[in-house]
Amino acid sequence: MKKIIGVLMSFVLVLCLVTSAASANSKKNNDPFKDKRMHVQIVLFDGFDLLDALAPYEVFAAAGMYSNGAVTVELVSAEGKRSVPSGLNGPALEAQAALDPKRPGIILVPGASGKPAGNSEDTIPNILKKAMMTGLSEKLKQAFNNEEVIVATVCGGTLLPAMGGLLKDRHAVTNQIGMEALGALGAIPIEARVVEDGPRFVSGGGVTSGLDVALYLVDRELGPQIANAVEQLFEYEKRGTVWRAEGIAPIHFDEN
Amino acid sequence: MKKIIGVLMSFVLVLCLVTSAASANSKKNNDPFKDKRMHVQIVLFDGFDLLDALAPYEVFAAAGMYSNGAVTVELVSAEGKRSVPSGLNGPALEAQAALDPKRPGIILVPGASGKPAGNSEDTIPNILKKAMMTGLSEKLKQAFNNEEVIVATVCGGTLLPAMGGLLKDRHAVTNQIGMEALGALGAIPIEARVVEDGPRFVSGGGVTSGLDVALYLVDRELGPQIANAVEQLFEYEKRGTVWRAEGIAPIHFDEN
Repeated sequence: MKKIIGVLMSFVLVLCLVTSAASANSKKNNDPFKDKRMHVQIVLFDGFDLLDALAPYEVFAAAGMYSNGAVTVELVSAEGKRSVPSGLNGPALEAQAALDPKRPGIILVPGASGKPAGNSEDTIPNILKKAMMTGLSEKLKQAFNNEEVIVATVCGGTLLPAMGGLLKDRHAVTNQIGMEALGALGAIPIEARVVEDGPRFVSGGGVTSGLDVALYLVDRELGPQIANAVEQLFEYEKRGTVWRAEGIAPIHFDEN
Repeated sequence: MKKIIGVLMSFVLVLCLVTSAASANSKKNNDPFKDKRMHVQIVLFDGFDLLDALAPYEVFAAAGMYSNGAVTVELVSAEGKRSVPSGLNGPALEAQAALDPKRPGIILVPGASGKPAGNSEDTIPNILKKAMMTGLSEKLKQAFNNEEVIVATVCGGTLLPAMGGLLKDRHAVTNQIGMEALGALGAIPIEARVVEDGPRFVSGGGVTSGLDVALYLVDRELGPQIANAVEQLFEYEKRGTVWRAEGIAPIHFDEN
């Protein structure tokens, strides 16, 4: 009897070991982040806002450092390699390559830096209008049509695809001063720091929300550990719940 | 009698008007922010951190826009006008002029972007050491000695004057990963987001604290209304109480 129990116990032990090994294996194979690679193109245009572009740039660059190169990031322009002046007579940055809407990964569009309103050439609306008269307009359309591209916009950058008619009935956010214009261009403006409309379009509010857009995408695409390491290095914690059109919608308490 | 009262009343009225006008005048003359002008030099060096330098740059630039030019800001380097590469193979920025430690105003020193530790050339400590072997070292000393200059540092930027022996027994903060080194260099490391040691030296912690250092200086030098306008535009609220060596010190609760 003792012998039978001994054999049975061994059998159970072997079974346990085999099962747990198989489970560990399947866990490894099912890890959605395994061998993940991500390329980010940050789009520059004349009059772009430095911080809108470079806060996400630096989040992605640090994510690349911590992930041993799983993220790569480059500055691009619709025209290709050139020196691109930022707004408000700010410093120029060198675009390293042409924006390629066929390349899988993230395409991030910053806003403009300029006077919030007025009639002069250096107002934000005029800088954005001018940008949409370049090749950027057609390339943004191709990016939105490419199933392998995630488009992210920051601040006034959300108004660029909106001006191109690409945000009809889509949820999005931009800088507070541009929310009315965003609605007038056919989008559905949402009061949130970061808005996700389908996995392939993520927009951020004012200037510094670019940090939150980039941290959210690093978390979603590469997992929370890399995003957390970047947060610690930057001494910044991602702000705001990312809004999505799902779950229970809150009661809208009207004033009347 | 009525006539006398009438004359008296007129006299009182005139007196009131004169007094209130004088008071308004004196209030105007005593306004410490009246006709205030402020020039900011942001110091670039090989391997500098983009966000450390450009987050404050953009705060000061926006403050300049909202104050009709009361703030001016430029990128400088110890060597003068040149293209300065940022760290981690990041984009270069054009320094527009030579750092001038004799010029009154703010001199802001960013940190480096690189690997937090290790032996390779591209670690943050090695990039900072290299920077202090340039003319920057002597110019920082002159800046600290100039009564009309406020020195502000962000992130690893605090380690530069510390390496130059300029922070002996002075309160300061740097990125969390550099706090031990800061103490070893003779400074008194303080756990705060922004630390003020006398009105002429303000330091900030990790990368994004550059926003808080700049917003604090705009508030202090130009008043809260301009700082608040920048906060609204950037959708960012200054974080943390600025630490100063005054007031009641908290009880230090030891673990044992």
